[in-house]
Amino acid sequence: MPRLRPTPPTPAVVQEIVARALIEDLAGGDLTTDATVPAELTALGVAVSKAPLLACGSTVAQAVFASVDPKLEFETIVPDGTWVASDRPLWEVRGSARSILMAERTALNFVQHLSGIATLAHRFMREIPVGSGARIADTRKTTPGLRALERYAVRAGGAHNHRHDVGSAILIKDNHIVAAGNISAAVMRARARAPHTSRIEIEVANLEQLEQAVAAKADVIMLDNFDLAQIRKAVAIVDGRALIEVSGNVTLERVADLARAGADVISVGALTHSAPAADVSLSIKVPLPERPIAA
Amino acid sequence: MPRLRPTPPTPAVVQEIVARALIEDLAGGDLTTDATVPAELTALGVAVSKAPLLACGSTVAQAVFASVDPKLEFETIVPDGTWVASDRPLWEVRGSARSILMAERTALNFVQHLSGIATLAHRFMREIPVGSGARIADTRKTTPGLRALERYAVRAGGAHNHRHDVGSAILIKDNHIVAAGNISAAVMRARARAPHTSRIEIEVANLEQLEQAVAAKADVIMLDNFDLAQIRKAVAIVDGRALIEVSGNVTLERVADLARAGADVISVGALTHSAPAADVSLSIKVPLPERPIAA
Amino acid sequence: MPRLRPTPPTPAVVQEIVARALIEDLAGGDLTTDATVPAELTALGVAVSKAPLLACGSTVAQAVFASVDPKLEFETIVPDGTWVASDRPLWEVRGSARSILMAERTALNFVQHLSGIATLAHRFMREIPVGSGARIADTRKTTPGLRALERYAVRAGGAHNHRHDVGSAILIKDNHIVAAGNISAAVMRARARAPHTSRIEIEVANLEQLEQAVAAKADVIMLDNFDLAQIRKAVAIVDGRALIEVSGNVTLERVADLARAGADVISVGALTHSAPAADVSLSIKVPLPERPIAA
Amino acid sequence: MPRLRPTPPTPAVVQEIVARALIEDLAGGDLTTDATVPAELTALGVAVSKAPLLACGSTVAQAVFASVDPKLEFETIVPDGTWVASDRPLWEVRGSARSILMAERTALNFVQHLSGIATLAHRFMREIPVGSGARIADTRKTTPGLRALERYAVRAGGAHNHRHDVGSAILIKDNHIVAAGNISAAVMRARARAPHTSRIEIEVANLEQLEQAVAAKADVIMLDNFDLAQIRKAVAIVDGRALIEVSGNVTLERVADLARAGADVISVGALTHSAPAADVSLSIKVPLPERPIAA
Amino acid sequence: MPRLRPTPPTPAVVQEIVARALIEDLAGGDLTTDATVPAELTALGVAVSKAPLLACGSTVAQAVFASVDPKLEFETIVPDGTWVASDRPLWEVRGSARSILMAERTALNFVQHLSGIATLAHRFMREIPVGSGARIADTRKTTPGLRALERYAVRAGGAHNHRHDVGSAILIKDNHIVAAGNISAAVMRARARAPHTSRIEIEVANLEQLEQAVAAKADVIMLDNFDLAQIRKAVAIVDGRALIEVSGNVTLERVADLARAGADVISVGALTHSAPAADVSLSIKVPLPERPIAA
Amino acid sequence: MPRLRPTPPTPAVVQEIVARALIEDLAGGDLTTDATVPAELTALGVAVSKAPLLACGSTVAQAVFASVDPKLEFETIVPDGTWVASDRPLWEVRGSARSILMAERTALNFVQHLSGIATLAHRFMREIPVGSGARIADTRKTTPGLRALERYAVRAGGAHNHRHDVGSAILIKDNHIVAAGNISAAVMRARARAPHTSRIEIEVANLEQLEQAVAAKADVIMLDNFDLAQIRKAVAIVDGRALIEVSGNVTLERVADLARAGADVISVGALTHSAPAADVSLSIKVPLPERPIAA
Repeated sequence: MPRLRPTPPTPAVVQEIVARALIEDLAGGDLTTDATVPAELTALGVAVSKAPLLACGSTVAQAVFASVDPKLEFETIVPDGTWVASDRPLWEVRGSARSILMAERTALNFVQHLSGIATLAHRFMREIPVGSGARIADTRKTTPGLRALERYAVRAGGAHNHRHDVGSAILIKDNHIVAAGNISAAVMRARARAPHTSRIEIEVANLEQLEQAVAAKADVIMLDNFDLAQIRKAVAIVDGRALIEVSGNVTLERVADLARAGADVISVGALTHSAPAADVSLSIKVPLPERPIAA
Repeated sequence: MPRLRPTPPTPAVVQEIVARALIEDLAGGDLTTDATVPAELTALGVAVSKAPLLACGSTVAQAVFASVDPKLEFETIVPDGTWVASDRPLWEVRGSARSILMAERTALNFVQHLSGIATLAHRFMREIPVGSGARIADTRKTTPGLRALERYAVRAGGAHNHRHDVGSAILIKDNHIVAAGNISAAVMRARARAPHTSRIEIEVANLEQLEQAVAAKADVIMLDNFDLAQIRKAVAIVDGRALIEVSGNVTLERVADLARAGADVISVGALTHSAPAADVSLSIKVPLPERPIAA
Repeated sequence: MPRLRPTPPTPAVVQEIVARALIEDLAGGDLTTDATVPAELTALGVAVSKAPLLACGSTVAQAVFASVDPKLEFETIVPDGTWVASDRPLWEVRGSARSILMAERTALNFVQHLSGIATLAHRFMREIPVGSGARIADTRKTTPGLRALERYAVRAGGAHNHRHDVGSAILIKDNHIVAAGNISAAVMRARARAPHTSRIEIEVANLEQLEQAVAAKADVIMLDNFDLAQIRKAVAIVDGRALIEVSGNVTLERVADLARAGADVISVGALTHSAPAADVSLSIKVPLPERPIAA
Repeated sequence: MPRLRPTPPTPAVVQEIVARALIEDLAGGDLTTDATVPAELTALGVAVSKAPLLACGSTVAQAVFASVDPKLEFETIVPDGTWVASDRPLWEVRGSARSILMAERTALNFVQHLSGIATLAHRFMREIPVGSGARIADTRKTTPGLRALERYAVRAGGAHNHRHDVGSAILIKDNHIVAAGNISAAVMRARARAPHTSRIEIEVANLEQLEQAVAAKADVIMLDNFDLAQIRKAVAIVDGRALIEVSGNVTLERVADLARAGADVISVGALTHSAPAADVSLSIKVPLPERPIAA
Repeated sequence: MPRLRPTPPTPAVVQEIVARALIEDLAGGDLTTDATVPAELTALGVAVSKAPLLACGSTVAQAVFASVDPKLEFETIVPDGTWVASDRPLWEVRGSARSILMAERTALNFVQHLSGIATLAHRFMREIPVGSGARIADTRKTTPGLRALERYAVRAGGAHNHRHDVGSAILIKDNHIVAAGNISAAVMRARARAPHTSRIEIEVANLEQLEQAVAAKADVIMLDNFDLAQIRKAVAIVDGRALIEVSGNVTLERVADLARAGADVISVGALTHSAPAADVSLSIKVPLPERPIAA
Repeated sequence: MPRLRPTPPTPAVVQEIVARALIEDLAGGDLTTDATVPAELTALGVAVSKAPLLACGSTVAQAVFASVDPKLEFETIVPDGTWVASDRPLWEVRGSARSILMAERTALNFVQHLSGIATLAHRFMREIPVGSGARIADTRKTTPGLRALERYAVRAGGAHNHRHDVGSAILIKDNHIVAAGNISAAVMRARARAPHTSRIEIEVANLEQLEQAVAAKADVIMLDNFDLAQIRKAVAIVDGRALIEVSGNVTLERVADLARAGADVISVGALTHSAPAADVSLSIKVPLPERPIAA
């Protein structure tokens, strides 16, 4: 099966996020650039990886520069989803020095954040043993306001998305079970009311609940904070009658074992809530060299 | 001097961010809650620290719950800016079980993110040797769309804010110097044009530039990626004629040395771009117990 | 299984839609009310059904009145999802006559639109023969900007929602099949990349495609514009290995036959794109009677 | 007098509505397209009428496609306001297959809704007898959030707009009369306070009120739910001293009689609140043929 | 006829404007207040006129304070539309000193601007000779983003509004005449296409055009930059067959003459584009006195 | 030092303000233009100064026209910040007559407002005696929603900006002093908590407070409503140990004396709250002449 590049978030979504970010930094103008940089000065900016990373966010960076100055020329050198070594050019922008300097920090804030997530997703994916069908998935533990971008970064890093939001699919948790009375009732109600396009996933806390979930014909069962031995038992019990998702304290060190234990899905909140920023900086030449540096 | 609690971001700012976050998760409704939880069921939710942390974000959580259901009752147990051990209640919410379950994830996403930043800020502050006047400061490397909240978390953690945005104060960097011709010209132009309320800060790459900056009467000089020996020399040269900010690769391990070397300000991008989420979960009881648990 | 009332759309979503609607009508003030109605005059407004209908939208109406004047008192008489005869009170509002008159049209526009959808959904549901497990489902053919409200109206009317948006679940259509090469490839790619919470639905145009879809283990198969005889054949071929959705030119007259033919899901674009407005008017008494009329 | 094409709503208005609609459907990405359609695949989409209709909304469709992908090429084949038979191309779009598939549903939702309104408006206009000066007018019973587009569709269909909002012109209804004391007082106050650009319209419930309205020199008198005989009497009484608008239960069958009875304006809420969607579909060819199909 | 107080702009409109204004000033927090004012300190703020003025904007001020802190108590002392001498209390607010200090400038910016417009409107109205039926009207020359508030201030000042926007009513200017061919064609087209609720106003540049406008049965004729002698001639020619609006260089000195010359409407762009701010300041007592000062 | 043109506000900020302004005027369409101007008619519009003024706002006007119709061609003739005599062309726009007429008023509203502020700023600057280092500064007394544009107009007029917002820099006023206890405590707290990029400014009411402020090492001292004699004494006391800002009732007549008395900064609220609109009109030729008029 060919590897298809994920589609970046739709421009209508990106524009709104970018505009908000620019207003955060530039609503009061850029005092320093205004005072020191002549309006007619040109520059070349090249985004450079300062450490190995999985590139992500160039279309967002492009939107940032275009929002500050539509005349800037932007070129992606390394497409999103590419692993790059340190000190490599990722994308470049040329045009008004004032415009590039004004947009720089906001563009980098996006790129460092998204590349950080993509890099961490990639690191997790690399731990999946060859031959395992297990997938790494994100969660709804995203940064408020940036879910669409962060989920794209997860995909760019080669991992998978979980449900987009609570309106996309069913995931029954402990309190839902309590409210419904028992696992059987919860699954039945969910199936009766949810869109027919949704699988029914249910979180279980122990093997007893697991058996009830299988009996209720849940499509996916999430094992919450199970240890390896419990996971292996669960896999044996389920025996293919449902997909198994493991969740809770998933670290790079544990991923291979979790996959070998038979998990179909390993979900990792840290992908989006704790990925450190990737180290990317913008190297700027003023004035713009006559010949493009990257050419 | 009394320690004043920082003011949380103004409701007009918080409301917009919260509404956006809720729409991200709830625009399509909550399929699972809708299917399994009766409308009249009540619940008590208690946010609990799952690790030691510096609490931050309860006013944002309150805004999240109020936006989902104005009838929910919210009570802060631990004020923002308080260090708490593991397994302590932070705040609680009571009312409709549906409403609490629908708002839960969004509220926690905010609280985990902001407490993560506050906790990291606090960790850096603890490294400042007693008697040192050095301060830890954030940078403009914030998460797009969340700058106001993140800067508040930095303050809650006991650290300081750098300039809010590029319209707040002057910070002359390498490209501004190139554009202006030299350090003297850059400082002079900045002083001539910036609001008189702004100090003039300039970033220098070596001791030669440092001397020029002092000669140009810069108010603050940022030493970019200087090693300890260089910082000590710089401090000696400046000799109180300007504030000294050190920046670049500041880690918890290096902070004490940087402070002892004479830095006035130690700025740390990681505070806002790489703080891992704090571990907070919401413990929910359905139905709502007759007597408040926290009482 | 108890019938659970669907949760109305979350206030953060409703507020934005309501504010926009009010600005559409009231940005320039209400000339007539301003000229003719004294500021201190009070009134009682009672929404009344002018034809049999399934009530929907009272929480939206409440939000409209509260946005115009937080001091208005609003009371729901007939909860959303209730079938009412003609000339019955649905909800009432009391307070400033100016405020009620200014909000009237916008509130009614919402209520008439949503009750219209709910009524039509209910009419379709009534045609499902007793004992059939078939469900009526909406589509993504919603009015731009009102999807969350319209899907709620469908649920209030007793019908089901299809996937909320293209990010919620997989639905492979003819052009996706062409792009992927064939049905098998399309289903395999979708399964490989979609969130594990999504079923894989595929639209087929004939029985040959249907067999390929079954072979590819699609979870749901949509029969596009099949006649009754073809649907029966399809049901026999599928034989429980997938859910069957029928779509295209579904009318009230055809629904019972479609259900009897074995459709699991009958999707009806007209629910949201062509439901006529329900006939609701606001009966207003000025000044407000001393005793509530509805009491 | 030449027939002037109405100006489509201003881009600032359209962009906001379109962005909101796209975010509704695409905030979570398009799972199916992402999984099955290669990024480099091109396509041609042709919007086709599946029934006779009055075309409307091509500029909105163009805005939808441009918002998803500014590189798509869009061409209007049939200008808004044109009556077309079944199976005719209305507009076409060419470029990235992913982009066309992602924008398809939203574009069609607008076009079907607006063409539905325009078609119904046209149907009403066709019933006006030759030689009659009566006009068909819309009302404020519009779909919340879409008033500007819907009023444009009414104009495209050859009908007329009533006042845009309650800030545009005076329309005194029964409760305003009660509040003001009597018809004479209501008209006087309205004239004294309204912008001098507004005519004074008043709704009357019987012939007695009609005579008072004429005496008060109202410019326009709305006959609310009058039967034909009453309308003829009213026309005779007014005798050209005011315009006459008839309103309430206006159907295609009654329009000709209402016009012949002497109504100047016949207002129809159904134009905007109950017009069924026009049947338009997008025929897509992948990959994009070398020669344009429509050429 | 009783003088009815104008209704303030609807809260949905005000909230959006107020939120935007607060974000402009407070997105970065209030450094000074945060540093110097304890969180628990209370205060009383009293808005005081520093010069004679016509009060306007207290509901907007109230919305500002409520948006910063819903617990603040706000009380209007002088209702909008009241003429006050210097050094009089207009409204007061009590509660958290931090909140009052943070909201102060934004609240005053609204009140000074709106009271400035209302005061100027009142000054113009006072020049209208007793017995004249002439009215002072505003224009569309409003401050971008504040039209709804400014038009309300004009009404509060006792003057009248012109049409709200270009979608409210017809006003044919020189270029429309050129485009239509002549005055007769322009008026005819306008009457044929405009909502029947709009009068037809036309601007004329000389007496010849005036006669054509009368012949075309324009309802309102605007005399653009006519001198007094010309206005008198125009009034004689029109002889009651149309309303007459005079426009252009209207000053306080000329108003009485214009009214005496027979103008029905005197429109003044300066009301909204050049009214100087009214002098209002906020007198603050910290801590809040036990007894209310205004009581 | 070269005079650098100030950078106009960033497009993300301008677009939002412009869209809001256009929706204010055009949400209901332009009835008159729609009725009288054929869609294919072209025009040339030339903005002309009707009085001497300092030009400002052409980039905003350009954004207005582009938002109404991206095909309009816009050319700036006189750059922002240029002093022009009466009857000079400032900028021109060519293309669809309908589009130009629809955008005209909104574009002019911006240009007249911003040029009014720039002109007043320039008038104040001209009063500064040669050789004086005093600067004219604006305040936070800006029009709500337009601060970014108005501050740019102040810069275009050659004057200076004060702090952008309350989050940019410290300015201690009387109530802050009361809350902190005394001047020394207020300054100390501010210095301890404010970003290190901010100078500490404090407002004093008399010479005693002035001496305390100097003793507390405030960086800038604002003399509130001091007369000339007091200012001279204050300057003598401060003797270069702080910058001196004078504020309160600054008129064109007093500026020279204030500068000569030794003020470093003279702040003028009237720049933004009371500047009369500059007189600019749009001269329109229909149809568009074959040769550009300005060429």
